[in-house]
Parts: sequence; structure tokens; C-alpha cells
Amino acid sequence: MAVIDPWGAGAITNYDHVFKEFGLKPFPSEWNARFKSPLFRRNVVIAHRDFDKVIARIGAKKPFAQLTGIASSGPYHLGHKVDVDLFLALKKAGAKCFFCVADLDGYLSRPDEKIPSLATAQKWAIENVKDLLALGLEPSDIYVQSNYKKEYYAFAFSLSKKMTMNTFEGIYGHLDMGKIGANFLQYADILHPQLPAFAGKMPCVTGIGLDQDPHARAARDIAKRLDVGIELPAFFYFRHQSGLKEGAKMSASEPDTAIFLSDSPEAAAKKISRAFTGGRNTVDEHRKLGGDLSVDKVYELLLFHHPDDKLLESVAKDFSSGQMLSSEMKKIAQDYFGAWLKEHQKKARSFESQAKKIVLG
Amino acid sequence: MAVIDPWGAGAITNYDHVFKEFGLKPFPSEWNARFKSPLFRRNVVIAHRDFDKVIARIGAKKPFAQLTGIASSGPYHLGHKVDVDLFLALKKAGAKCFFCVADLDGYLSRPDEKIPSLATAQKWAIENVKDLLALGLEPSDIYVQSNYKKEYYAFAFSLSKKMTMNTFEGIYGHLDMGKIGANFLQYADILHPQLPAFAGKMPCVTGIGLDQDPHARAARDIAKRLDVGIELPAFFYFRHQSGLKEGAKMSASEPDTAIFLSDSPEAAAKKISRAFTGGRNTVDEHRKLGGDLSVDKVYELLLFHHPDDKLLESVAKDFSSGQMLSSEMKKIAQDYFGAWLKEHQKKARSFESQAKKIVLG
Repeated sequence: MAVIDPWGAGAITNYDHVFKEFGLKPFPSEWNARFKSPLFRRNVVIAHRDFDKVIARIGAKKPFAQLTGIASSGPYHLGHKVDVDLFLALKKAGAKCFFCVADLDGYLSRPDEKIPSLATAQKWAIENVKDLLALGLEPSDIYVQSNYKKEYYAFAFSLSKKMTMNTFEGIYGHLDMGKIGANFLQYADILHPQLPAFAGKMPCVTGIGLDQDPHARAARDIAKRLDVGIELPAFFYFRHQSGLKEGAKMSASEPDTAIFLSDSPEAAAKKISRAFTGGRNTVDEHRKLGGDLSVDKVYELLLFHHPDDKLLESVAKDFSSGQMLSSEMKKIAQDYFGAWLKEHQKKARSFESQAKKIVLG
Repeated sequence: MAVIDPWGAGAITNYDHVFKEFGLKPFPSEWNARFKSPLFRRNVVIAHRDFDKVIARIGAKKPFAQLTGIASSGPYHLGHKVDVDLFLALKKAGAKCFFCVADLDGYLSRPDEKIPSLATAQKWAIENVKDLLALGLEPSDIYVQSNYKKEYYAFAFSLSKKMTMNTFEGIYGHLDMGKIGANFLQYADILHPQLPAFAGKMPCVTGIGLDQDPHARAARDIAKRLDVGIELPAFFYFRHQSGLKEGAKMSASEPDTAIFLSDSPEAAAKKISRAFTGGRNTVDEHRKLGGDLSVDKVYELLLFHHPDDKLLESVAKDFSSGQMLSSEMKKIAQDYFGAWLKEHQKKARSFESQAKKIVLG
């Protein structure tokens, strides 16, 4: 297993002080086996808060819930697919599903130049929902912030009484009004599955990146003050897939750093061919020293998205030993993602009218 | 007319500097005739913003809308009835009606000791809606903040992008988070009737007290920044009925200052008997000097609520001249409100199940 985990057990210790400071616990590797998912097997999930409650519910075959959300402010890329794949893994493990298509958040937390109106965010939401359905979510797993039940909205507004300005400023620093609105929606997203009008009180978990922990702390702080009895929301923390360029984050605003779910196989192949790799300067050097897996963005792509453990293991071995060149690994990725994108886009197109109905009602 | 207007034309000039500072215009007395209502005839409405647009629409027999709201945080008293009577007068003049039962506002803007949960505010909302129906509103005139259309909530959240913290602090000073939530709901209340999902773009007016003008300015400021085309909201400003004690406001938290719509005729009679009057210290003095109408709380009660202009005029004349004693005016008020309360409460009781349906859905 260590072979196909470029971060290794050692890398996690780098997070130790972060975990301690914020009260996170390392995600025990024995939990990974509970989820039939390459992402868990490949140690993508690194930390948690109260996830042991979820494990206990799975063990006792009792219900639990999960909430994940993505702001609708542009097209999905492969980084978003990781959120969805993790969500699907917990669904398979029995979670009651709440996938939030956050169009209001997309509108409120992005500048007007990018998202000038809620209608723009809703247009993106339709594209996003097509992707979600093509990735394997069912319509009943999904809700859209601007098109939901009254109990959700009343709850979101109610929460504003449960946090002081001081706490808010302490967690986020200075924030504009739109972000306050977006954040209270986010707390409602995380907490509402446990209301009587939804799944009812039960452990409810949300998967996020470490950078989003302030929202988790805020949501847990609010949950403690609620008069409706709910469990503190649980969280698991996963590594973000990085961008295709050296050191870059995968970002919708820098299209070359990400492969979008709407990219043509040709466009994706081009991005892969230009990706930063761990290959050496010359073929001779590469054969002699072997490639550096730990910085290789193409390998990371495969690690996050290729379903075949065996293939991944042999790529890792062959590239590290110098037997496989970067160009060869790129070819594997281009072939895999080319076929995958074609198939995905065909599915996504077929969900057009269903997505419109889900977003606009 | 001057006789039954204790404030007189002179008193209004006291507001002149307030009007100028905030850009309000005095409400021209010739407009009062457009509304078949004692409150308009008795000069209760004193100022406006853009109400000329409403007058023009009435003249052209074109549609206009009105929005009024009362926070649900306790029982209605006669002061609230003034809001409702003004609303009914504009309804008679052709307004499309949006009467907001503000239960979320009631919860968010009141301390937890008073309104510990949204459920508490909703319990008051049911009582309030019973009163509204008994006062003459129809179910279709009423909406409840926690039980409304998704377009309203999406709009309320969207508005948070249209106001900066600085503007907000400039208008209100420091505010807690709950009040921010309550205020954005209030802006949505004032502006939403003009959205396509509701009445559509047209002049829309809200009646408020002068002390609520900050909300009017904020709502107009936001309206200017919206990408959906709407008219700036119009406002009219009416005098608040004062409390029954000397100098006191009518207040639900000081029960002796107000007659509640749920008070028994006996309780109301007692409050009236203890009200502050403009009667003189002795009967002789009263006969000689006449009563002082301008401070008489019983007369104010009649002025705001007794439908009979002739009776009011003769009470004013006889009391001012000293012919009528305070005890005699009190008897008139006790008889009138006693019968009115009995009849009102009978009606209100009959609306119990309808009110529950309106509030809880």
C-alpha cells in the first residue's frame, strides 16, 4: 500500500501540530477498509472530528447522514469529482444523502464580475447537477440552495441568533455582508439534515479540506447552542488534489491547472502532456535514478481517479525504478481520461432536462 | 376637521426639520380623501416617500402593491390595529396585499428570555393571524416569514450582497448578528412584492412610523443596486398611538399602557378608567377651563379607533368646553371598546384552525 501512497505515513506527521492545535484526530487507517473506495484505500482521508460515531453507526447497521456541498460558480473539474467520489463511497456505506448544490453561496461569495446574479449561479448549477448525476448521484441525493424546503431557510435565518459578531470575527477575521449570508447558509447546510423535517437527529458527517476547518468549528459552535437536539456535526478531512502545474492548486480560474469534466479528450490530453512530472532531465538520467513520484502530477491524477489498484501499483513501481518514462505514464493517463471524459459527457448530456428541473423546480 | 385632530396643522411643523434631514415629504391633506378611512381623515398619516406614485396609480386605475409587517413576539394591542386598519384602507383603494407575519423577525430580534425559539414566535404568529383575520384581512393577504415561497428566501439571501458592512453600520450603528438576519428579511419583505414570482414590478408602499425610517432608507439603498428592475419602494409615515399612561409608549412589555385585542371588556374598562386624561383637578375647574384634549389618552383611543366622526367631534367639543367630564368620556370608551373586544374575540376564536394552517402550512 505504501507504494501507491506518495504521501506515505511520514508525510502525515507534518500535520501533527495542525491537528493538535485545532483538535483534529488522525484518520486511523483501519477505517479505510469500511469504504469500498480507492480514495479511502489510497489514504486520501487524513483526519476527522467525531468520525468514530459514523463508524459505530455503520458497525451497528444504524442510519447516519452525510452532507457535502460545492458552490456553483463555474464548471466542475476533477478536483470536484474527488468530493463526489468520497460522497458516493459513504452512500454505499449506508449514509442518508444530502448533496448541496450551493448556488446562493456561489453568488454571494464570488465577486460580481464573476457571478453577477443568482441566475448566473443557477446556470452553473444546472451544469453541475448534470455532472453529479453522470457521476452516479441520484436526484433524491441532491438539493439546490435556492430551491429547497422552507424549513431549511427558516433554520438558516434562525442560526444567526446563535453566533455573536465577536465569535464570527474571531473565526474569520473581517468579512463582507455577502459572506456572512453565505456562511449562515453553509451552517444550515451542515446542520439541517438532523432536523425533524429532514433525516432527524443522527450522526451527520461532512467531508472537507483542512482549509475549510473554520466552517467546521463555527458549525460545531452553533450546534452546541441550538435548542433543537442534534448531534455535533462530524467531519472528515481529505487531501485536495493539486493542480497540473508545479506547486499550483487546481483552480477553475486558471484553466491550465485543472481538467474540467467538460474538457474534450483532446484538450485534456494537451493539459496532461504539459503537466509537471517527476521525470528526470534526460532518458539516461531517468533510467538511472528513477522518476520522483512524490512531485508527479500525472501520477497524482491517476492516484485520485484511476480505479485500478494493480495498474497504479505497477506504474508507481516502474516509474520509480526508471523503467517507465513520463511520456509513457502520460499516455496511460491520456487514454484513460480521454475515454472517461467522453463517456461522462455523454451521460451528462442525457441529464439536461432532469438537471433543469432539480435546479429551477 | 381641526377639531378632531389634536395634533393640528401646527404640530406637524415640528417635524419639518426631521422631514428635511431625511428627505421625507409632508403628506398632503388632499390625498386623505382618496382613502375611505377615519385614520386618513384624521391626519394620522403625516409624511411619505414617493407616495405620489401610488396616488397616480390609483388615479389611473392601475395596480399597485403594499407590504406591511408586524413581528410576532407577543399579543397584538390596539396600536397594532392601526397598522392593520391603514393596510385595509389601501386594500380598499385597490392595493395588491402582502401582510407579513414576521415570526422569524420576532425570534431573531427579541432576546431569548422573551422568545426562546422560533416555535415560540410561531405560537404568537397563530394568535396574531387570528386577530388579522378577525380585523378583516383575508388569508390570501397574509404570508408568514417562516412559511413562504423559496423565491422569497433566495431573494433575502441575495440582498446581503447588495449592502456593505460600512453602509449597514452607518445606518444602524453596531448590530448583533441576529438583527442583521432580521433586517435582511425585512428588506426582502419590502422589496419582494415586485419580483416576477409575486406581483411584478409596480409601485409598492409600506406604512411605518418615523422611527423605522432607517429600514426605509436601507431598503431604498439596496433597491438601487438590484439587477432585477424594480421601483424604489414607497413609504408613508403614520403617527403611533401613544400609551394610556402619561408620556408612555404603547408597549406589549408594559401591559398597563396598552389595551390588547385579547383583553376582556372588564380588563379594558379598568385600563381606560386609569388612563391619563386632560381633565382638570376639580369638576368646577373643568367646567370653567375645559379639558385639555391634546394630552388626553382616552380621546386618543377614540380618535384612532372609533369609527363615528360625528360622535368624536361632539366629544371633542364638549370635553374642550368643559361640558363633558373625563369620567363621561371614559364611559363612552369603555362601552365602545367593551362591545368591540367581545365581538372581535368571538371572530378571532372562529379563525383558530385557519390561522394554524396559515402559520404552520
